[in-house]
Amino acid sequence: MSDAWLDELMFDADGLIPAVAQETGTGKLLTLAWMNRQALAETVRSGRAVYWSRSRKRLWRKGEESGHVQLVKQIRLDCDADAIVVEVEQVGGIACHTGHGRCFFRKLEDGRWVETEPVLKEPGQIYGTKQ
Amino acid sequence: MSDAWLDELMFDADGLIPAVAQETGTGKLLTLAWMNRQALAETVRSGRAVYWSRSRKRLWRKGEESGHVQLVKQIRLDCDADAIVVEVEQVGGIACHTGHGRCFFRKLEDGRWVETEPVLKEPGQIYGTKQ
Repeated sequence: MSDAWLDELMFDADGLIPAVAQETGTGKLLTLAWMNRQALAETVRSGRAVYWSRSRKRLWRKGEESGHVQLVKQIRLDCDADAIVVEVEQVGGIACHTGHGRCFFRKLEDGRWVETEPVLKEPGQIYGTKQ
Repeated sequence: MSDAWLDELMFDADGLIPAVAQETGTGKLLTLAWMNRQALAETVRSGRAVYWSRSRKRLWRKGEESGHVQLVKQIRLDCDADAIVVEVEQVGGIACHTGHGRCFFRKLEDGRWVETEPVLKEPGQIYGTKQ
């Protein structure tokens, strides 16, 4: 497979593009993360979401510690080629490192951010033991 | 209403935060755009999505030219407070300046970006005449 599809993307000055993970079927927005060229290429090749961790400055194979991998069903691109959507099956039903089902677990309500979704598993239980 | 909820957000070095617009009901991802503090405050105050246009370097009241405004139903925040989701009703059923229903109208298929959704209205018809 040629890399022409990668050349069409508008990565930012840091070589990154925002990637929104959406759960197939439910349509729930799970997380917004970032990919560089290598992460996206590996995502397509492996069928599992791979991001670039801006804090750790390295490839982040989603689920590498938690087991909560994201199986990629579809990848979509926007009009300006500077944002992508990754439709995924979320293994384990937990996308967020906080143990919530997804990262967008708060909503704005009367001028306050309110948690509207529960912690499904305590982070200590997710990351405390090696698989 | 105090601005404490705004102070919790992690705007980037340019004072921006990515905002994903999702259609209420269908769950379709319409667009990924950017907001600064002022855009988000006005979004909440007015109930209509207001973004920061990085190309035009000014507030972009979505639909100001096309009439395709986004009526905000809910605003969600992620775990790191550096990305938001705006659940909206898309007036006119067209979110994208290309005339597609949404910006994510392409998908990756066998190493190529393929349009999977039609142009609903030609841009010339959307922007050609003043309302």
